[in-house]
Amino acid sequence: MNQQTSPLQLRKKIRSGEFTGNTSGYSQGYVQGNLCVLPADWAGDFLQFCQLNQRPCPLIGMSGNPGDYRIPSLGEDLDIRTDIPSYRLFEYGELQREVTDVRDVWRDDLVTFVLGCSFSFEEALIADGLEIRNVSEGVNVPMYRSNIDCTNAGRFSGQMVVSMRPMLPADAIRAVQICTRFPSVHGAPIHFGDPGMIGIRDISNPEFGDAVTIRENEVPVFWACGVTPQVALEQARPPFCITHSPGCMLVTDLPNSHLAVM
Amino acid sequence: MNQQTSPLQLRKKIRSGEFTGNTSGYSQGYVQGNLCVLPADWAGDFLQFCQLNQRPCPLIGMSGNPGDYRIPSLGEDLDIRTDIPSYRLFEYGELQREVTDVRDVWRDDLVTFVLGCSFSFEEALIADGLEIRNVSEGVNVPMYRSNIDCTNAGRFSGQMVVSMRPMLPADAIRAVQICTRFPSVHGAPIHFGDPGMIGIRDISNPEFGDAVTIRENEVPVFWACGVTPQVALEQARPPFCITHSPGCMLVTDLPNSHLAVM
Repeated sequence: MNQQTSPLQLRKKIRSGEFTGNTSGYSQGYVQGNLCVLPADWAGDFLQFCQLNQRPCPLIGMSGNPGDYRIPSLGEDLDIRTDIPSYRLFEYGELQREVTDVRDVWRDDLVTFVLGCSFSFEEALIADGLEIRNVSEGVNVPMYRSNIDCTNAGRFSGQMVVSMRPMLPADAIRAVQICTRFPSVHGAPIHFGDPGMIGIRDISNPEFGDAVTIRENEVPVFWACGVTPQVALEQARPPFCITHSPGCMLVTDLPNSHLAVM
Repeated sequence: MNQQTSPLQLRKKIRSGEFTGNTSGYSQGYVQGNLCVLPADWAGDFLQFCQLNQRPCPLIGMSGNPGDYRIPSLGEDLDIRTDIPSYRLFEYGELQREVTDVRDVWRDDLVTFVLGCSFSFEEALIADGLEIRNVSEGVNVPMYRSNIDCTNAGRFSGQMVVSMRPMLPADAIRAVQICTRFPSVHGAPIHFGDPGMIGIRDISNPEFGDAVTIRENEVPVFWACGVTPQVALEQARPPFCITHSPGCMLVTDLPNSHLAVM
């Protein structure tokens, strides 16, 4: 298996247990998504939270009726219960365990949400010749809790989590241009420069992911981050929730270019 | 006469001598252009200089045969010799005098170039709710000689002149998005933040235009500037050249939206 494995092939290997790891770098050119599965009586609030906070929570797919574990618009033969390498099970906002299959805990009232992730725009930036520090240093992108309030929706609220990639100013300008084409994977950066302006006290100490080198003349550039809804879920404490494990994403059949609005 | 005077009406008043001032704020919504008129034996080099340096020298119109003083694509009944409020006459790169009509010095070998100007993108930024400091402070935009080399073309060379507008980072990101739509009026900023990175020693001391206030948390944002070709002309020292006087632009019939590429 290599980077060119098709999304369908990759999902089949995930389903069979042959592939269990991080999906970063696999099936290049195709959209990978964040997973969130909630009981139907929490789904309305969560859908509204995504709608009101599209920068951190860009919805790229959703199941039809409660209990559906297929989303044909995202993938041929896709089964949400088996096709993700690793799942996290939460009860009342607390992580219970990580599993590679959720068929045994699946319920008839579960609704699935798939949110865009930064892999898509990182690929577009790298294709344009920009260096993405977390990629070149082989670590997870650094993420921070900001002081930017999300818009509340029912039981969901919280502050925006942001990811950071250091860049020279001219590259940051180019990144704004490229990422603007991809609103469904967080879109343009929301801030650059002084971390304190968005409530980040120590740039060398990310709350999620890993610290990366910031070189001379580079400025930190901040994007809205898909960890935001997970923090909102932890605060809302629904009795049951399934997410993907960090880095173990749903690999869809959508080409990244399909998300470009222009 | 008011801001809504049509470009044709305004040009007629300029031609008759009724209007002789700065065109900033007049015929809002329409493209205003920088003027450069050169003898035919210098026109090829200048055209190549514009082609190779499109960010500072975005060509929006050019006369047909040498001697032509009409550019129908830019304006109905347009006469380049009379329809600009104030002209500057140069000989060998030295300013000779300012006049309101160049019919008496017009020659059969003159070629006219019209370059896009920042008024168009400033209007788009203001329409989107951004504050443009030089506009709100009622002064000319501050401009600086940078250390960014232009690409040489024949006898033309020089370093890029940049204009500066201070903005909060989130507004600067929005400005990149909006200005990207307008490549023929300098496009996206080329730099933000540390002025020293592009060879500017004292941000409070612009080489052209006026200093503006930079408030707390704002960063200076720099655009390629249409004064760049004027500096290149001063260095190349053609025996004869006509430009507009600063702020006294050619007002065209093109709606600003016509320049948007998307």
